[in-house]
Amino acid sequence: MKKRMKKPLKANQYLLLGFLAIILMGSLLLKLPIAHNEGIKISYWDSLFISTSAVCVTGLVTVDVALTFSLFGRTVIAILILLGGLGFASMVISFSLLLGMNIGLSQRSFIKEAYNLSSVQGTLMVVRTVALTALVVQGVGVFIEYFIFRSSYAPLDALGHALFNTISAFNNAGFDLMGKFQSLTLYRQSVAMNLTTAFLIIIGGTGFFVIADIVRNRAWKKLSMHSRIVVTMNSILIIVGFLFYLLVEHLEPLAAFFQSVTTRTAGFNTVDIAGLSQAGLLVTILLMFMGASPGSTGGGIKTSTTFTLFLSLGSLMFGRQTAAFKRKIGSESILKAFQVLLLSVLLVSGGSFLLLLIEGSKFTFLEVLFEIVSAFATVGLSMGITTEIATLSKLVLVVVMFAGRVGPITIATSFARKTSQLGYVEEQVFIG
Amino acid sequence: MKKRMKKPLKANQYLLLGFLAIILMGSLLLKLPIAHNEGIKISYWDSLFISTSAVCVTGLVTVDVALTFSLFGRTVIAILILLGGLGFASMVISFSLLLGMNIGLSQRSFIKEAYNLSSVQGTLMVVRTVALTALVVQGVGVFIEYFIFRSSYAPLDALGHALFNTISAFNNAGFDLMGKFQSLTLYRQSVAMNLTTAFLIIIGGTGFFVIADIVRNRAWKKLSMHSRIVVTMNSILIIVGFLFYLLVEHLEPLAAFFQSVTTRTAGFNTVDIAGLSQAGLLVTILLMFMGASPGSTGGGIKTSTTFTLFLSLGSLMFGRQTAAFKRKIGSESILKAFQVLLLSVLLVSGGSFLLLLIEGSKFTFLEVLFEIVSAFATVGLSMGITTEIATLSKLVLVVVMFAGRVGPITIATSFARKTSQLGYVEEQVFIG
Ligand SMILES: [K+]
Ligand SMILES: [K+]
Repeated sequence: MKKRMKKPLKANQYLLLGFLAIILMGSLLLKLPIAHNEGIKISYWDSLFISTSAVCVTGLVTVDVALTFSLFGRTVIAILILLGGLGFASMVISFSLLLGMNIGLSQRSFIKEAYNLSSVQGTLMVVRTVALTALVVQGVGVFIEYFIFRSSYAPLDALGHALFNTISAFNNAGFDLMGKFQSLTLYRQSVAMNLTTAFLIIIGGTGFFVIADIVRNRAWKKLSMHSRIVVTMNSILIIVGFLFYLLVEHLEPLAAFFQSVTTRTAGFNTVDIAGLSQAGLLVTILLMFMGASPGSTGGGIKTSTTFTLFLSLGSLMFGRQTAAFKRKIGSESILKAFQVLLLSVLLVSGGSFLLLLIEGSKFTFLEVLFEIVSAFATVGLSMGITTEIATLSKLVLVVVMFAGRVGPITIATSFARKTSQLGYVEEQVFIG
Repeated sequence: MKKRMKKPLKANQYLLLGFLAIILMGSLLLKLPIAHNEGIKISYWDSLFISTSAVCVTGLVTVDVALTFSLFGRTVIAILILLGGLGFASMVISFSLLLGMNIGLSQRSFIKEAYNLSSVQGTLMVVRTVALTALVVQGVGVFIEYFIFRSSYAPLDALGHALFNTISAFNNAGFDLMGKFQSLTLYRQSVAMNLTTAFLIIIGGTGFFVIADIVRNRAWKKLSMHSRIVVTMNSILIIVGFLFYLLVEHLEPLAAFFQSVTTRTAGFNTVDIAGLSQAGLLVTILLMFMGASPGSTGGGIKTSTTFTLFLSLGSLMFGRQTAAFKRKIGSESILKAFQVLLLSVLLVSGGSFLLLLIEGSKFTFLEVLFEIVSAFATVGLSMGITTEIATLSKLVLVVVMFAGRVGPITIATSFARKTSQLGYVEEQVFIG
């Protein structure tokens, strides 16, 4: 009799458990009195929420971070963001590398899952590029932001703010230490702050695999189809968002650009989100939903997914192949893209339904939907209800943030057994 | 030199043009003074709206039908509903049959498109079954409803109401002559009225192809996979909706059952829709979106599409084949199901966006989304904003109703050219 217990966990099951472990550890650390400013106490549920939000690089907060957390607490949050942003799996490998350990095939398959690579080969190179890029880009960020914050803070405080803000921006976390939930609204006019933060967000949200590809090949024609799709889609979405916020919401150019960049996953804001029109909020929801690129610090269904979906519609409408940049997109990728879409729609619908059940008519449907999509796409923008929801609702958001960060496909397939290929006869169904 | 003008229209282009022609003709007839009660005048846009709503069997109305329309007007509306419900194409054939004309292959391909059949063969049988079923079922409906209405109306009036109501129910149109936009709320307690109407709705919404299949084969095991899927999914959705309205919205059993049946496309109501909770409205939106079955008088993405989508997720999660009732669902059907989902989500998002742009903050997002989904799925339920929206918004709803009725796939593919199969190399993309 075979022992069923001995069956090894699959890579994505390790990934889920690893993320969970870090979140729980973080929630305990953030509950310690030493993590709080004097006279402040928070419930375990709030510390769980903040820990989840940090590890999932979401940025939704139920308490005022600046007011609540001590230097120790802020450091814990920053480390959680770093762990969550770079991904649990690549951290395991990075530490192993640092300690001179051997990298086995099973560990590489972590990376493969985490970065959604189609083969195990080349993962080591990706990890090295990830680490180096992360270090260099964030170094530049801290350097510039130090001088920006220096105008308002003492040297050490300015350095602290520069560090926290850079980590939060590069990892698309959207946490801030400005207090009163005002995010970067104070810096709405600051060209330096807006451009630096946008730069960090864009690099972090492009995905390390694409960055590794660009670093290695340095020519558009040599890039993989995936990299070209990501760069193209990213540019299109930034421009479309910019034009929308500029022309329809009548924001000034700098604010419109920043809002377009930050909406698709970073979650900082320089403008009052609740002050947008309902049409603007709907567009914001759609931008959040589409999100950043795979293998990046960002969330959402991802730019490559959105691109593939539209390509499939284009092929339906114009009878063309689903091809881009002279490569045909595999039918597996297309099916997966649609499955991601459906799972995401179900997750968002389910989350909204639960929140509406719990909260009744306390908030509008739009506020609830906005909050859930923001949690799912690990954006962190809010129309302002996060601090007012019930504990049960916070738990719903915790689950949605987690599912959104590890990805609905990862969760869904962690149940999968091997496909049984019984020889059923194929038959078409009438659709639509 | 070839004459490009001579290229024949495709079947679905005929279908689109046919629907359009009937709608425009209807809008002109409904604008005639003879169509209105004394002293009543309506704008062309309202008559266009009512005509579209009738032909698309939607049931959204910008004016009070009972108050506005004369016997002539009501007759025009009933005929538009009949034409729209049975489908333009099958009407052409039915008339041809009646007149003893020959049925050519090109006409049969109308039917094939209209009923989403995978082959041209057997279409004649389907048309005969359609006509006969429609006649018998509606005959029974009129007979029963006459006695229900007889308790409040004189014989001729009762007959008129029974006729109009039966046509409206069987064709899932949701139009009523009760006045004051009260639909069937007066009959909330009437077991006879609720059951008769529900019976008409369910038969009409099951799809003539399935009915033909059942009439012909009379045994579960002999039915096509499609028929079994439709019957199964219909039952599941009716039960789920019933339990939800009963347990969460606390409606009494009869009202909960009727609401569950009517939501997925008929659009009558015995309860106050705007009085449902926000969670209830979200579930109603989802039920409307899923809709009735293909080739029926109903709309939405269709039961078979929903079934296929969930089956695909099941296969992803549990590693099983996408098989049901011992038949594997073709990968073409699966791709088409996802494309229908995406097109429908885009249509609903786009429609909602336009309405929000036009109306600003006059209505809540939930009211607007509800209205658009109702129009898309040709349901006709409303939280009460149809009569208050701007003319431009009415035009948006007209387009959404039309696109929803003929189906997003039909519209999308009417642009299609032949697929060019250039031999691109296939490459996978990283998704989600
Ligand atoms: K974020
Ligand atoms: K209807």
